[in-house]
Amino acid sequence: MSEVLNKLAETLEARKTAEPDSSYVASLYAKGLDKILEKVGEEAFETVLAAKNVGADGTGREALIYETADLWFHSLVMLATLNIGPDEIINELARREGLSGLVEKANRTQ
Amino acid sequence: MSEVLNKLAETLEARKTAEPDSSYVASLYAKGLDKILEKVGEEAFETVLAAKNVGADGTGREALIYETADLWFHSLVMLATLNIGPDEIINELARREGLSGLVEKANRTQ
Amino acid sequence: MSEVLNKLAETLEARKTAEPDSSYVASLYAKGLDKILEKVGEEAFETVLAAKNVGADGTGREALIYETADLWFHSLVMLATLNIGPDEIINELARREGLSGLVEKANRTQ
Amino acid sequence: MSEVLNKLAETLEARKTAEPDSSYVASLYAKGLDKILEKVGEEAFETVLAAKNVGADGTGREALIYETADLWFHSLVMLATLNIGPDEIINELARREGLSGLVEKANRTQ
Repeated sequence: MSEVLNKLAETLEARKTAEPDSSYVASLYAKGLDKILEKVGEEAFETVLAAKNVGADGTGREALIYETADLWFHSLVMLATLNIGPDEIINELARREGLSGLVEKANRTQ
Repeated sequence: MSEVLNKLAETLEARKTAEPDSSYVASLYAKGLDKILEKVGEEAFETVLAAKNVGADGTGREALIYETADLWFHSLVMLATLNIGPDEIINELARREGLSGLVEKANRTQ
Repeated sequence: MSEVLNKLAETLEARKTAEPDSSYVASLYAKGLDKILEKVGEEAFETVLAAKNVGADGTGREALIYETADLWFHSLVMLATLNIGPDEIINELARREGLSGLVEKANRTQ
Repeated sequence: MSEVLNKLAETLEARKTAEPDSSYVASLYAKGLDKILEKVGEEAFETVLAAKNVGADGTGREALIYETADLWFHSLVMLATLNIGPDEIINELARREGLSGLVEKANRTQ
């Protein structure tokens, strides 16, 4: 998983210097922080609605995975705009859970 | 990073059978899905407000990292309640970005 | 103000039997409750962002009025879908503020 | 209804000079705009969740009225902080719906 978030962050970084109409992310950057934050907000509501729609038989499960991926993706775009990488969020989560040892180990073995 | 999300998911899974007053997460599970979704929503707004408060000099950067970690954390609790692991979100992100090869490789080497 | 909210509620009620492509509201009804709730959510974030953008000199004031009107409008559409009129929200606000007398008086004089 | 919103706006205005611990609204003002916007956001999610919980038999109808009143109330507090009255939102709604005539008439007869 680690490699996916890192690679995604690299891609988001590279998009910063791309033409606005060359990709979805480049167009979001061009529209600015407020538009990116509106997207984070939209995805948060879509995630919550998708979670309410998951049935006892698992209906709607795929939709929730899709919306949560959208929420995380747009929060990564928000972070990239402000020059923050996913590793800083993961480190904060590790710190809280007393998992900082894992992060250090991962850094050593990378 | 991979290990942190996986370990966090394990911890969230273990909390499901814990006494409601034994931890914050156990108390959230006991309150049910709606309360967990309200928390996801609250954290989404706090994240957006924190992003608006980041200054050109980097003021507020730590607060945004903290709020985004809160948003991701509560979305992991939401997923755990519905028996979805972080790997399913990461796989969806990888699929979109044409990074599925990385996920397969990671699974092989785990 | 009373007449505006009442008249708006009447218009929203009339749209329920209109063709989906005859107006914006008719198209929203046709898309269903989830889409209407997504719009409420979007407008909530746009309102909050607009409020953050109001300057000490009053810049952005008009944008906030516009977004708040959007938020109230879409919450009226949500209520209409579920057969709730704006008077029930106003009555609840009046009850809390000890203004129930005003509502009764208004009903008597309508 | 008009009188309720106007009276509520007057009450919110009066709270601005009250001691922070004298009322809920005075304490919100003291906490500042961000905290008020967080409340608007929380109430937006609670409203959306309440709308999803309304059953075909009307269960949950009262809860939705309650949450929508909370949403409108906190948006009025937000507007008051920024010196905007509910009449400016109602005027905007009237303008869009071609109901401006009603507002003018209401102003003449106040």
